[in-house]
Formats: sequence, structure tokens, C-alpha cells
Amino acid sequence: MLISQRYPTLGELQGKDFLSSAQITAEQTSELLQLAAALKTGELKINLQGRTLGLIFSKASTRTRVSFTVAMARLGGQTIDLNPSVSQVGRGEPVADTARVLSRYVDALAVRTFGQAELEEYAHWASIPVINALTDLEHPCQALADYQTLQENCGPLDGKTLSYVGDGNNVAHSLMLCGALLGVNVRIGCPEGFEPEPGVLEHAQQLAAGKCSIEVLHEPDATVQGADAIYTDVWASMGQEEEKEEREQAFSGWCLNKELLALANPEAIVLHCLPAYRGLEISAEAMECKASRIFDQAENRLHAQQALLAALLGG
Amino acid sequence: MLISQRYPTLGELQGKDFLSSAQITAEQTSELLQLAAALKTGELKINLQGRTLGLIFSKASTRTRVSFTVAMARLGGQTIDLNPSVSQVGRGEPVADTARVLSRYVDALAVRTFGQAELEEYAHWASIPVINALTDLEHPCQALADYQTLQENCGPLDGKTLSYVGDGNNVAHSLMLCGALLGVNVRIGCPEGFEPEPGVLEHAQQLAAGKCSIEVLHEPDATVQGADAIYTDVWASMGQEEEKEEREQAFSGWCLNKELLALANPEAIVLHCLPAYRGLEISAEAMECKASRIFDQAENRLHAQQALLAALLGG
Amino acid sequence: MLISQRYPTLGELQGKDFLSSAQITAEQTSELLQLAAALKTGELKINLQGRTLGLIFSKASTRTRVSFTVAMARLGGQTIDLNPSVSQVGRGEPVADTARVLSRYVDALAVRTFGQAELEEYAHWASIPVINALTDLEHPCQALADYQTLQENCGPLDGKTLSYVGDGNNVAHSLMLCGALLGVNVRIGCPEGFEPEPGVLEHAQQLAAGKCSIEVLHEPDATVQGADAIYTDVWASMGQEEEKEEREQAFSGWCLNKELLALANPEAIVLHCLPAYRGLEISAEAMECKASRIFDQAENRLHAQQALLAALLGG
Repeated sequence: MLISQRYPTLGELQGKDFLSSAQITAEQTSELLQLAAALKTGELKINLQGRTLGLIFSKASTRTRVSFTVAMARLGGQTIDLNPSVSQVGRGEPVADTARVLSRYVDALAVRTFGQAELEEYAHWASIPVINALTDLEHPCQALADYQTLQENCGPLDGKTLSYVGDGNNVAHSLMLCGALLGVNVRIGCPEGFEPEPGVLEHAQQLAAGKCSIEVLHEPDATVQGADAIYTDVWASMGQEEEKEEREQAFSGWCLNKELLALANPEAIVLHCLPAYRGLEISAEAMECKASRIFDQAENRLHAQQALLAALLGG
Repeated sequence: MLISQRYPTLGELQGKDFLSSAQITAEQTSELLQLAAALKTGELKINLQGRTLGLIFSKASTRTRVSFTVAMARLGGQTIDLNPSVSQVGRGEPVADTARVLSRYVDALAVRTFGQAELEEYAHWASIPVINALTDLEHPCQALADYQTLQENCGPLDGKTLSYVGDGNNVAHSLMLCGALLGVNVRIGCPEGFEPEPGVLEHAQQLAAGKCSIEVLHEPDATVQGADAIYTDVWASMGQEEEKEEREQAFSGWCLNKELLALANPEAIVLHCLPAYRGLEISAEAMECKASRIFDQAENRLHAQQALLAALLGG
Repeated sequence: MLISQRYPTLGELQGKDFLSSAQITAEQTSELLQLAAALKTGELKINLQGRTLGLIFSKASTRTRVSFTVAMARLGGQTIDLNPSVSQVGRGEPVADTARVLSRYVDALAVRTFGQAELEEYAHWASIPVINALTDLEHPCQALADYQTLQENCGPLDGKTLSYVGDGNNVAHSLMLCGALLGVNVRIGCPEGFEPEPGVLEHAQQLAAGKCSIEVLHEPDATVQGADAIYTDVWASMGQEEEKEEREQAFSGWCLNKELLALANPEAIVLHCLPAYRGLEISAEAMECKASRIFDQAENRLHAQQALLAALLGG
């Protein structure tokens, strides 16, 4: 059976890019999560034998790289590392040339880079699907795995509340956009000066209109009150190492610890997209508590990305 | 059906090395191009499941690395990177030991290195096929893809004219040798002092005797007059970065632009083995013109190398 | 047919770690060698399609990396490099997190690191099999390949004598432990101050009790007298480069050369786990002599590790 028979709106994704959580519809997002769950249980098998995914990663990566590689392997395909240490990618060849050449070799590209504009340039020139595997602006594959985890634990997502405490970064952006599509109330709690991009917030609020609420707060307690999930991420992302000390000061009081967790819904789960710095954005205790679904969440990268690859490549 | 039933002279290549364009016969070269075309259309499928190709690349590479990797993946096999950053290859272990050990593990080696002598040392010690994936002397896999592209666009190669303008380098060498085997008139146009190696030219002329002409010229217009394809390559190859300025001066007037293209056959195609430096060896306009087959040419690396691997490994 | 039907004690290894030669029983060791031999002849085929092995290699490696990768490829699976240059492994993320995340993605981990304690930490946190792919303390995969080579050449191992001349290092440790399990008399000959760890020696002697002898000697001639195999390894392992000169002086007189070989059993074979430094621990002549099985030994890494992977992953 073709994916598109079971998941009617996923058929439209074949051959498309996935650069932002907001690039697909609410129905497609929801069907991707269903497909991811079916792939996780093994109820559904998809065959992408002979297909190859190119990975262009300008930043180090464990979870993203490994989860994409294993996702392709389980689908019967292969992955090719195109990082600068072994290729000419990023050594001055224009993206216009690299993207057109790679389009002749591989079946899709997952690009991890800094600027969203560079990702979009790849997508402009490539004739194959380009996937955002992390930019400074968004992390849409992470958001799929995150909401898959929430759904696994809390059932239907509609009306649930996810509270993110910390930096209003790429992860927060994709959580807002993807959450808005899925009908999840998303609260971003952060110190003044570390808010999400206003444009992304506005976009998420438009998508959420009439379904759920997308808010930015500046107080940890209010952020997590009654939430179904509390989520945090590192305070200083890759490339912000020199701001580390300044950020630690600004974020003081924003640690996801047992006290904060106590304010959430009693069944609330703890999420973190890793790597985690214990004692900073999350306490060791919260990290290892019974409510933690952090390693399930990491695993779901694998299943969510398999679903995405199957949809984009037409498995 | 075995390859050797359909392509009788390719059977002889099983287990052999491919170090130079001139190491195989005219018939074998021609049959490799036919096999590459059949693999490109999908008319023929070859299975190399469980087979592995080792890549020993002392230089960065995009096209060669990716095209070999995808070629093996499409044939059902796998590729292993053996570059020095992750292995002891090139860290002082004698080639005699490395080549003998790797012969026990992988089914073929593609070697990208500087000196042809080092490549030959690998071939001497290895008991498996060794493929020239670029040396300072030759680039025979590139030449196969180049003539596949010419054939796709201009039909039977016999009597066609390919004009190469630029540095008399490894690419030019393999174009002369492979062209001579295929009956293509090859004109190498270059500034004084940048001619191909006299020994290679002489070898190509011997192979061409009675079939076609292999010439070296020092004037761009004369080089391209009436040609079926105009081809160029970078003026400063990897390892020649410090000569860059001096070379740019020497090659001034040798840019492949619309004016030069106007002197060729009206149906002439534009080729470049990439990466390209717009405004130096090729104008942006020529690069993107309707006659450009540069990205088809890049794609054909994939098909030509699949054909080669199938022949050497006995698919 | 399942492995466990033909090799009854290997079934117990499914899902287990392999951190030390002494972590498995004499029967399991012996059955692994039988399985390795059956995989080498092709008499037995095992299918691990869709399974992935992660490689965490903190040190450069040719043989170990390539042999594991090809082993998985021949079994139908894939391998993922997790070395620090392309991942966050080893960049400060606690092993507790890395190991738990990777357990969700891959089916087994092969770890090459310095301290045995770090390896054990991976094994503690991982829920998948962890394989010692070389530590400062042991090299158990190498020992399996070594005894497979001895068995191929000398028949049943029980009562045979293997003499190792050189540094009492990780290779010597695993040879003692694995030899003790297989009933092989192991003599380690080394200069004073370069003996194996007393704890490992004692452990090996306990395992050998009543079956064979495990001895440490300080005289090359006595070490090799009547041996069925003479084995050596580099004097300065990776990480000991600064001790190189001092070690060369201490080991003077310990070169495995024709004179030393003449004292062994006339049918004795020469082994070396490579890379080799001719003129130091082994003479060029001994390296290339008729008795050398050094490249067969390297090849057997492939077969022994296929057997191990099949057992641990339940092929």
C-alpha cells in the first residue's frame, strides 16, 4: 500500500522541501505523526532501497546525523556525509553549483547550517527535496519528534499545553509553529531579551488563531502552570560559546528543576532536545526523574524522520 | 544476463585495474559507454550486493566521492571512506601493507592522490581492482563521463571534435587518450608553457593514428573552430593555489565565453568538470547557456563509474 | 537455521557486551572460532539486514574500522561512524547520555578508546551490546582473529604454544586470556619493566589452570623455543609516541627476525597485528617470509568480527 492511500495529504509532500515547520499543513503534520507512530510499532514498513540521502552538516551533530542515517538504513537506503572535512562543499563552490550537482546524485539533502537563507539557497537550486536539519531559525525535525512524544504520552494533542522554558531559539520557533498547526497551546518562557523572533511568533499566532494559544512569558512559574509537558534546551547553542557566562547570568532562575515541575500538571512530562547541561538549564534530578521522556524523545527523531523521508521521497 | 554476454570485451576487465584511460582498448572504452547509457536509462540492472568499494582520497572531493558512493549504493553495494582523518592510511604505514590488508577486506579501491607512482604502488600490491579517481597525471573516470555526455548529445563519436581550452592538465591528458581510443579529434588549446605532458600527447597520437587527430594549439579561436564540444577546467588545480595569480595572468584571453563559443559548431555543447570559477576559465553566461551540458556531465560520472565498477567487479 | 541451533553456547551471548576476552566462556570462544571459519568459507550465511553498528573511535584505525564496516556490509547491515570530528560524541556530553541516546538508534556499539573504564561506562549505560574495539587494557577482537589464524594453520588449538615477543600490552593481555580459554600455552617475552599487568596475568593463569600454561619470560630465545606461532606488536602504541626512543632502547634485542624464528617449531607461523615497523619489532625478512600469516591474520578480523556480531545481535 502506498503511503498516500493511507495518509491522503502526505502524497502532496512528495518531491517537496521541508525547510520550516510552517511549510506543511496541519493535516500533513498530523499525518506525519501518525505515520511516525506506525513506523515505530513496526505496523507499517516502507522501502526506499537504492535511495540515498546526502547530509550537509556545517555543525557537529550526533542525534541528527545518526537518526537520519539509521532512518535511511531502516528504510533500506543509504546516507552520504558531505561535510566539509571530506568534500568541497562549503569550500567556496557556489551553492548553485553544489546543489545542482548533488541533485543528480542523491535523492534528498538534509542540511544543517547557520542561516536560514543558505538553506533556502540550497532548496532554490536543488531539484530534490531539501530538509532543514537545523538552522539558527528553526529545527522542524526536532519539533515533529517532540510532538510525537507528547502524543505518545498524553494522547490527542488538541488543547494540550507545552511549556518551554529557556532561550527563544530555533527549537522554540519550531515548537511554536508546529504546535500551532497541531492545536497545542505553546508557552515560551524566557528572560527579557531572549524572546523568540517577533515574526515567527506572529506567524505561529496566525496559524493558531481560533485553535490554541501561542504566548511568550517572562516568568518561569507562570510559564509552566498546569502544563502537560515542560521542555528546555541549552542556554548557549553552538556558536554562542563566547556568550556562555553572560547567558548563564541572564537565565539564572530558569532551571528546569523539581520545584518548577511541581507547578505543572501532575502527569506532565519532561522534555529536552539534548545535549543537556545538568545544573544549568535542567537539574540532574529533573533529567532522571520518572516524568522524563528525554530519551524517548531522542528516539522519536528516528521515527519522525523516517516518516518525513517516506513522505518526501514517496515511499 | 552477464555483462560479458552483452558486452563481450568488458568480461576481460574483471579483476583488472583502471589507472589510465589508455589501459583499456578502444572496444572496451566504447562498450563501457554503452553500458553506462543502459544503466542511465534503467534498461539494465546490475547487482553488486554485499560488495564494498574502499575510497582512499588524499584530496578533498565532492563529485568523485559522492558519485562513487551513489554508484555503489545503486548497484546494491557499499563504500568505505579510508581518508587519513579517520584511518591510518597515509600515516606512515607502507602502501605495501595497507594495500595488501585492504585487499582482504574490500572488493575494489578508488584512489585519489597526487603522483601516478603512488597509485601504481597501490595497484602493484593490491590483489583487487584499483581505480584512478584522480592523479596529477590522469582523470580517466572523468573522461568516460565526458565522452558519454558528448555521445548523448552528438551521436556516434567517431569523427567528432572536442576542443579543450585551458591548462594541459590531468583532465586534458585523459581526454586525449580516451578520445584517441574513441576516434574523437581532440584539440588542446593552452598558453605556451601549459601544454600537456609530451609523453602523453605522443601516446595519444599513436592511439589515434589513422583514426583521428590529437593536437595541441596555442590560440583559443583556432582551438574551438567548428568544434562539437568546448571543454574547460580550472586554471589552478588543487595543490597549485600559490600559482593562482601567475596562472590567471598566463591564461588571460582563454576564458570560455559566448564569443569563443560562437566560433564552434552551432550545435556545440559546453563542458566543464567542476568546480568552476566564473569570470576566470568560464564566463557566468557560458556556464548557464543553453548549450551547457555541465550538470549532465556531472551526473554521468555516476553512470560511467557504475559501468566501470560493474566491469571490474564482474557484475 | 539459527546460530544458536548449531552453536548452542553462542545463543547466550545475544544482547551481551564483549569488553574482555575473559567475558565469555571457553565453549563460547571455541564456537565463535568455528562460526568465523564457517563464515569465511561461505558455508554459512547470516542476515543482519536493516541492523546498524555504531563506531565510536577515539583513535585512528584502519583495520578495526574497515573490518567492522565490511563485516556489517557482508551481513547485510550498515555501520555509522561516530568519531568526534563529525559528532558531539566526546565533546563533553556525559557518556551516560550519549550511550542511552545511541542505544535508541543503533543495534550495537564498537568502542575504541583509551581507558577500559570509559568502555565500561558505555556498557553500563547502553542497553545494546558494546564491543571492545581496543582499549589500553585489551584487544579481544584481535585475539579472536589471532587464534582463528593459529587454528587454520596448526589445527586444534589445545596444547599449542603461542609465543609473543615484545611489549606486555593490550594485545598481549587478550592473547593470554583468550589463549587460556582455548587451552593454548601462551608465553609473553618482554624486557624487564614491560610486563603485562599482574592482575591480567593472574586472571589468565586461573583460567588456564589444569589446561595450559601462561608464562612471562624475560629472554627472547627461551620465549620462542618450540613455539607454534611467534607473534609481535609495535613497541610504542598509539599515545606512547614520546616514549618511542626510550622504548626502542629497552626493546633492543627483541626483534622478531629469522634467527629468532629458527628457534621455534619448524612449522611455526609468524603473526603481527599491524601496523608493523620493519627493523624495529620485526625484520623485513620475517615480515615477508613463507611462515608469515600476517595478512591472513588481518583478514580474519573480518570473519571473527562477523561471528561476534552475529552472536551478539542474534543473527
